[in-house]
Amino acid sequence: MTITIIGIGLIGGSIAISLKENGFAARIIGVDQSQENLDKAVRRRLIDEDMDLGSAINESDLIIISIPVNAMLQVLPKVLDLVENQVVIDVGSTKAELMESVKNHPKRKQYIGTHPMAGTEHSGPEAAIPNLFNNKTTVICDAEQSKNDAVELVEKMYNSLEMRVLYMDAKSHDMHTAYISHISHISSFALALTVLEKEKDEKTILDLASSGFSSTVRLAKSSANMWVPVFQQNRDNVLDVLDEHINSLSKFRTLLIKKDFDKIHELIEQSNDIKRILNS
Amino acid sequence: MTITIIGIGLIGGSIAISLKENGFAARIIGVDQSQENLDKAVRRRLIDEDMDLGSAINESDLIIISIPVNAMLQVLPKVLDLVENQVVIDVGSTKAELMESVKNHPKRKQYIGTHPMAGTEHSGPEAAIPNLFNNKTTVICDAEQSKNDAVELVEKMYNSLEMRVLYMDAKSHDMHTAYISHISHISSFALALTVLEKEKDEKTILDLASSGFSSTVRLAKSSANMWVPVFQQNRDNVLDVLDEHINSLSKFRTLLIKKDFDKIHELIEQSNDIKRILNS
Repeated sequence: MTITIIGIGLIGGSIAISLKENGFAARIIGVDQSQENLDKAVRRRLIDEDMDLGSAINESDLIIISIPVNAMLQVLPKVLDLVENQVVIDVGSTKAELMESVKNHPKRKQYIGTHPMAGTEHSGPEAAIPNLFNNKTTVICDAEQSKNDAVELVEKMYNSLEMRVLYMDAKSHDMHTAYISHISHISSFALALTVLEKEKDEKTILDLASSGFSSTVRLAKSSANMWVPVFQQNRDNVLDVLDEHINSLSKFRTLLIKKDFDKIHELIEQSNDIKRILNS
Repeated sequence: MTITIIGIGLIGGSIAISLKENGFAARIIGVDQSQENLDKAVRRRLIDEDMDLGSAINESDLIIISIPVNAMLQVLPKVLDLVENQVVIDVGSTKAELMESVKNHPKRKQYIGTHPMAGTEHSGPEAAIPNLFNNKTTVICDAEQSKNDAVELVEKMYNSLEMRVLYMDAKSHDMHTAYISHISHISSFALALTVLEKEKDEKTILDLASSGFSSTVRLAKSSANMWVPVFQQNRDNVLDVLDEHINSLSKFRTLLIKKDFDKIHELIEQSNDIKRILNS
């Protein structure tokens, strides 16, 4: 099968590596607004060739759009305008606004909104890696609004990446990802800002940074171009969980001020419960 | 050389593994208030044998105390009461209060306060691992208050663990570790509480938890028994940086409410600066 990937960055590039390696794709065409990215992608053999959008779609059976979610709002309808019988998926981190934007498109049934829950803090074609998706979860949203054979094809593709497939409506997806993914990023961005503000001596950060610190601020290396549109499209859910997070931190603050260390002990033991859930 | 390690948990046990492996210690004696931990430590061959505190000190050249920092305040003076010419170090995460507590002890010059900046979210002798310390940093505090040959011995020991040695006064140490290590733990504990509060469906946490989320909440698995005394002894510095962290998160909150996504973009790019520092 011939697959077009629009946006050859961390996610698009990593999908390209795995689908070529496992034989799901015989040929991969890259489309990207940056010719530099496309050249890199060809040199890294992430894609077989690059093409303009129209020709790429004409030659393909499946089109995967992996670009920031604000650009997605423009590109997805344009792609759907151009397809005949091809299946189109996106792999963005927010779903409700996008699904709403194409709900009346005549080719809606050939499109499937998906979200493979995998990534790293790096971006660009140089960040693409093998096995990024193995044993991770992907979400397929509002599957009942797409043609059955299209959903089957996409399931098959994600199975070939060794991903678990979950089904969810777009609104639930956006709520859960705010809780589990988006707030982690804001927490990490804010922690980096905090440490940069308090610790003016950069050498001390570097000297003392333990693996715990590195792990907690890792996501603060993530791309603003990717994340700002996510926060924009998922603003209400993100605000809701951010309020709760500030509230949790304020509990620690109040107890520290009151020197109520027994209660802090209780809070930490409550938070340890995440261990039971993540290890189960 | 014979070394006594008081407290055979993650840190004490990992030191034991490495010092035995690299030949720095010919014999390692374990002391722990939990006979169960000692039995485990013998079975895992972390220590050669266990003994009561007095006999262990008598047989040793170097005594390493690796217990929670509240217990340290009781145990360190007791150990110094018992030593003749032996060198004593602690490896706790806070230093100022401890140093203050023994400043007039007649054996003060044989004691060196240290803090190897390494660890994991696990605890107990079963958590001890090889190579925990390689290429990490250790801090030696107030070195001028200890005998030169004692400091040299401890440097040699940390060099044998392949650690970089930094020198700092105890108060600076506590301030910097609040900024770089302690706040990461509070942030992670609070994030776990937040997600547990918002996401009542545990299965969804497990299904959707990406590697980003896991990395950000990893420290929330850490032991309350170890961390509460750290926050207690370093309360003022921790409160200071916690205020700043709540302030950073509140900036994101205000900008989200105002839908000022350009400013959010700027904040994220500022926070990305942590990449330059950590990778340098």
